Amino acid sequence: MIFTKPTMLVDPDTAKKNLKDMYQKARKHKLMFRPHFKTHQSGMIGAWYSELGIDKITVSSVDMAAYFTRFGWEDILIAFPVNIKEIDVINKLAQQIKLSLTVLNVESVEYLDKYLLHEVDVYIKIDAGYKRTGVVWSNQAELQSLAHSVNENEKLNLKGILCHSGQTYQVNSVSEIIDIHEESKYRMKKVQETLSSIKKDLLISIGDTPSCSLADDFEGVDEIRPGNFIFYDLQQYRAGACNLSDIAISVACPIVSMHRDRNEMVIYGGAVHFSKDTFFEGGRNIYGYVVSLSDEGWIVPDSKMLLTKVSQEHGIISVSPDAFMEYKTGDFIGVLPAHACLTANLMKGYVDSNGIKYDHLACK
Amino acid sequence: MIFTKPTMLVDPDTAKKNLKDMYQKARKHKLMFRPHFKTHQSGMIGAWYSELGIDKITVSSVDMAAYFTRFGWEDILIAFPVNIKEIDVINKLAQQIKLSLTVLNVESVEYLDKYLLHEVDVYIKIDAGYKRTGVVWSNQAELQSLAHSVNENEKLNLKGILCHSGQTYQVNSVSEIIDIHEESKYRMKKVQETLSSIKKDLLISIGDTPSCSLADDFEGVDEIRPGNFIFYDLQQYRAGACNLSDIAISVACPIVSMHRDRNEMVIYGGAVHFSKDTFFEGGRNIYGYVVSLSDEGWIVPDSKMLLTKVSQEHGIISVSPDAFMEYKTGDFIGVLPAHACLTANLMKGYVDSNGIKYDHLACK
Repeated sequence: MIFTKPTMLVDPDTAKKNLKDMYQKARKHKLMFRPHFKTHQSGMIGAWYSELGIDKITVSSVDMAAYFTRFGWEDILIAFPVNIKEIDVINKLAQQIKLSLTVLNVESVEYLDKYLLHEVDVYIKIDAGYKRTGVVWSNQAELQSLAHSVNENEKLNLKGILCHSGQTYQVNSVSEIIDIHEESKYRMKKVQETLSSIKKDLLISIGDTPSCSLADDFEGVDEIRPGNFIFYDLQQYRAGACNLSDIAISVACPIVSMHRDRNEMVIYGGAVHFSKDTFFEGGRNIYGYVVSLSDEGWIVPDSKMLLTKVSQEHGIISVSPDAFMEYKTGDFIGVLPAHACLTANLMKGYVDSNGIKYDHLACK
Repeated sequence: MIFTKPTMLVDPDTAKKNLKDMYQKARKHKLMFRPHFKTHQSGMIGAWYSELGIDKITVSSVDMAAYFTRFGWEDILIAFPVNIKEIDVINKLAQQIKLSLTVLNVESVEYLDKYLLHEVDVYIKIDAGYKRTGVVWSNQAELQSLAHSVNENEKLNLKGILCHSGQTYQVNSVSEIIDIHEESKYRMKKVQETLSSIKKDLLISIGDTPSCSLADDFEGVDEIRPGNFIFYDLQQYRAGACNLSDIAISVACPIVSMHRDRNEMVIYGGAVHFSKDTFFEGGRNIYGYVVSLSDEGWIVPDSKMLLTKVSQEHGIISVSPDAFMEYKTGDFIGVLPAHACLTANLMKGYVDSNGIKYDHLACK
């Protein structure tokens, strides 16, 4: 393939394999599968999910819900605390599709009571330990008061409870991830019990890719909402949630300068391409691994080369003296990113080895 | 003003004051002023510079040069190592405008020798201490060999030497910034001497906003290329390069949940709005300061509230128990970002208090 500037590559075979694996895992465990689309944010990539018969999705903003509605999705959960200021678009969407909202306080429910014009399903956001947002799982009084207030509203169908155990992104071993998963399951079941007097059998919906990739016990869980698994990335790899060969995206970048005196080369590829998200390895923050580009995509080389620094447009790659001879200014290398979601959000589109271009919400 | 979702605000009065101050400083020191447009990336904001009679600009990519060419700019320096793979667009631009390129190795010069169709000015990139890219200032042999190779090419007019002393972003005191500035000046003058046998009086061009804001001795320097100063941000504030009242952008974000139990509130405003760039304060990484929104823009409150965590769409604000009573879900707050350039790149546009919308390259 011929590139002229930083270009995000997608490997459809790997992505579709990741998708099929997760889909089959959901079926095996009799889980509803409501994959999160915030990772790819692409109508065309969304079509791969439809082909498998997937018809429920998760998004993280009203904009994203509106975008995927235009691509024909009719059952969308916005898994972000409802932003009441966007009520006009919410009303429009609630009229068009089966919309699910996430609530976590009575104020928002009261607002929806006044201004919502159509029926929606409602999930209550639970803080099962991540401490980002949601009603704390053990706060029975607040849980019941919120569930009551949802239940009293005719347009709000109390459907489930959801959590996102993002702590799994911050640990570095499979056993720690499984521990968090088990803890979250236990806590979500406790919440389900707490609310059973108000509504029986509320759906339990969990979300993070590390747990969904690694766990094999989903007893009590009704729905999973992983997103990142479609591409995976180095943060997931470091957490043990995937192999390097499962990573389905990379960014092709031109080398613009070689610095043999300090064993570094500079690529056109920086914070406006990769974001500034990192993972920790060898005592420092790393932005990506270098891969070799091929006609079919990319190949993970035997020797590791790291993207160790980024500024707005520049990226600095550490290169071993031996490897230096293989590269020259003007060559393109590939980089597996630390965080697929943020990289995709910045790159605003994908291309595959057949030259097919895939859209992204940010380009609309 | 009425907002529904995260919205980037610009205060034109403050930005124009920042611009006028830097412009006058350049005049006072008899410096050519070639401001960097990578911070705002906006054709409409660029018009503020034209109004002052500024006619030379700096950009960081071929795309950005093409974009500003469409807005009528006719003297553009791409202050990024020339990406030879974009030769077709470079040739098109070189035909349309007075284009300046940045080179730092003989390979690129040889490539340009073969494929460049029109004359361009050339700056040699010097590493004056930042260790990102450029020929090391003290490497006389490499400097002379590169300058020779540029000089031998009829289409390449060797015009100057440029550096970016980005180390000034990594220190926390004015005296350290001035030390770096003095060191860079000294080194650039040494390079000028080294190359004087090849070409006399090569322009010395320096770039970073902290030095340009704080230094008062530009002896020997011919041109300055600061960019961030138009908006400033908290990284610049922490470095001592500006006051909080000089910061000309903020991001309006809705509060989506309040967590009184842990003195935090959650905003719709995360890594896809602010980037993950930070500054270090009080022993931790900070993404932004909270400001109060008003009809005229925003007001910096007496008590400091910090944006302490971001994930894709969520931001977590630490709030003192006293301040909690002032806020509720659905309210909008403003956030001064750690890094203006990356935030603007993600927000893809601005609005001022009169409701005027300003374009951004990322939306084209």
